[in-house]
Amino acid sequence: MKAAFIEKPGPPENICYGAVPDPKPGDSQVLVRVKAVAVNPIDTYIRSGMIKAELPTPFIIGCDLAGTVERVGSNVTRFKMGDRVWGSNQGLLGRQGTFAELAAVDENYLYPTPSGVSDEDAAAVALVGITAGLGLRRALLVFGETIFVNGGSGGVGSTVVQMAKAWGATVIATAGSDEKVAGCKKLGADFAINYKTEKVADAIKKIAPNGVNVWWETTREPDFDLIVNAMARRGRIVLMAGRDARPAFPVGPFYTRDLSLDGLVMFMASSDEQALAAEGINRWLREGKLKPKIDRVLPLSEAATAHRLQEENTIGKKGTLSGKIVLKP
Amino acid sequence: MKAAFIEKPGPPENICYGAVPDPKPGDSQVLVRVKAVAVNPIDTYIRSGMIKAELPTPFIIGCDLAGTVERVGSNVTRFKMGDRVWGSNQGLLGRQGTFAELAAVDENYLYPTPSGVSDEDAAAVALVGITAGLGLRRALLVFGETIFVNGGSGGVGSTVVQMAKAWGATVIATAGSDEKVAGCKKLGADFAINYKTEKVADAIKKIAPNGVNVWWETTREPDFDLIVNAMARRGRIVLMAGRDARPAFPVGPFYTRDLSLDGLVMFMASSDEQALAAEGINRWLREGKLKPKIDRVLPLSEAATAHRLQEENTIGKKGTLSGKIVLKP
Repeated sequence: MKAAFIEKPGPPENICYGAVPDPKPGDSQVLVRVKAVAVNPIDTYIRSGMIKAELPTPFIIGCDLAGTVERVGSNVTRFKMGDRVWGSNQGLLGRQGTFAELAAVDENYLYPTPSGVSDEDAAAVALVGITAGLGLRRALLVFGETIFVNGGSGGVGSTVVQMAKAWGATVIATAGSDEKVAGCKKLGADFAINYKTEKVADAIKKIAPNGVNVWWETTREPDFDLIVNAMARRGRIVLMAGRDARPAFPVGPFYTRDLSLDGLVMFMASSDEQALAAEGINRWLREGKLKPKIDRVLPLSEAATAHRLQEENTIGKKGTLSGKIVLKP
Repeated sequence: MKAAFIEKPGPPENICYGAVPDPKPGDSQVLVRVKAVAVNPIDTYIRSGMIKAELPTPFIIGCDLAGTVERVGSNVTRFKMGDRVWGSNQGLLGRQGTFAELAAVDENYLYPTPSGVSDEDAAAVALVGITAGLGLRRALLVFGETIFVNGGSGGVGSTVVQMAKAWGATVIATAGSDEKVAGCKKLGADFAINYKTEKVADAIKKIAPNGVNVWWETTREPDFDLIVNAMARRGRIVLMAGRDARPAFPVGPFYTRDLSLDGLVMFMASSDEQALAAEGINRWLREGKLKPKIDRVLPLSEAATAHRLQEENTIGKKGTLSGKIVLKP
């Protein structure tokens, strides 16, 4: 089969596109004919070596996939040939990735693709959707509360905006251009702030004078003074990015407001927890309440280009992406 | 009645001991004949003005009390004349304090003193016990987990050590002298570390190679690198001191381990939540599993001396206290 793979970590040019042996599914695995995959920032950290990881050689890159069941292992009970499926959590912890024509995936990490939902959409929602679902559950967001999404136009952020809205929360989001601000509102944000032209602290104070109940931070350099001061009593802060950040932490204002801070990384969650999040995602996809933002669709042979573009936006903050990059084998 | 009070915030010398009018209990209040009170660090922050607070004039200092019901308001249902009671959460949020011969306290903030438990012990356990109970609940400490108490010989720390032990956890504590280390073990700590002579990070690694599940921080300058590196996956950190601290926060190691951080301040909890903690405290007091550490008992007229001593230890780190200061009117 054809796949996008690396022999060793390094820059995007390390990604080769070519023939590798077909995967052989184990007893509890499903062989998926891949129809679409999506790029996530973590894919680029693994590829570059920024995240030290145990990698098979060659290592097929990528976490997310959507496709059709080609064959099932002898212990697989939830899927049969021809089923449409999506999933994430691959290309991690020693597992091969998804950027290939075929992928062997444990059935525990696969979910049925609802009819009417495209493979592109299912792949694009996978990691960001599960992350959003896990975090909203962890933050115990309750109907009627206010959530602030710092970075509402990014992959996870735009998903959190939609899910929190479906959940019954008041949603405030930030974005870096008037166009992206309008995009946040289109996704369902009740309020959206242009962080390049407005004072975020003042804007929050005006919208939510008593503070926000949940702060979802997607930026890689959290400003804890801004965050802690914007929180309501007993507010919950979700952190999910910023591997090298070491900002000052205002201990007093944090504990005297009874706040909590939750660190979140999808692949630490059990397959059961991820499946629970996936159930919610499937419901909202079916009901049309969750619509993944896709910036562009590329052929899988352009995986290196896709990684470069992702990196320029995640690390370089170019702002040239406004949605997921989806690739098709 | 006689009381220890201030006319305005300032140094310990601002505390006067003299006559003030007897309090008049409201309909939902209990008039308590005070038999014992205890000093907490927060008392000194309120007295000094470090915590900006709305204060009646004169302001009777003190949060904790134990004594006997002298009279009850017309709506009081839980107590009658002659009942022995203890409580905390006074001298805060505009309420008068407890350092007096009589105190009018809402019945919601009073709990029955178990027979066989002295007023001194009941007063000494009040604020620290409720804080410990609220925090252990918030941290979801589970039977069989490991808790690390940084500062196991202090007021809250020594209470957390005993409660966590009663709860079925493995307890590791630190203290600043061999004598205090021995004291932690006597309170039930499975392991105790002298932080002045041992490398705490190395000692934890040896005792709990997979990390600790809960870290209870009592120091006023948390070292988040030490803390985060010592945690097991999904560990919970409790913060309850350090009003002016601004340490660097290692975002990446925190979120990639799925950690959470909970800020905790007793007086933010509802009276129901505090009463739930008090129920547990009463059970453990009755069963002899919780024994407050009292450093000395002074007459109430020496309230200024008591505040000076507390401050020298909380702020000045003199290490001359090894337990609560209790005063008796």
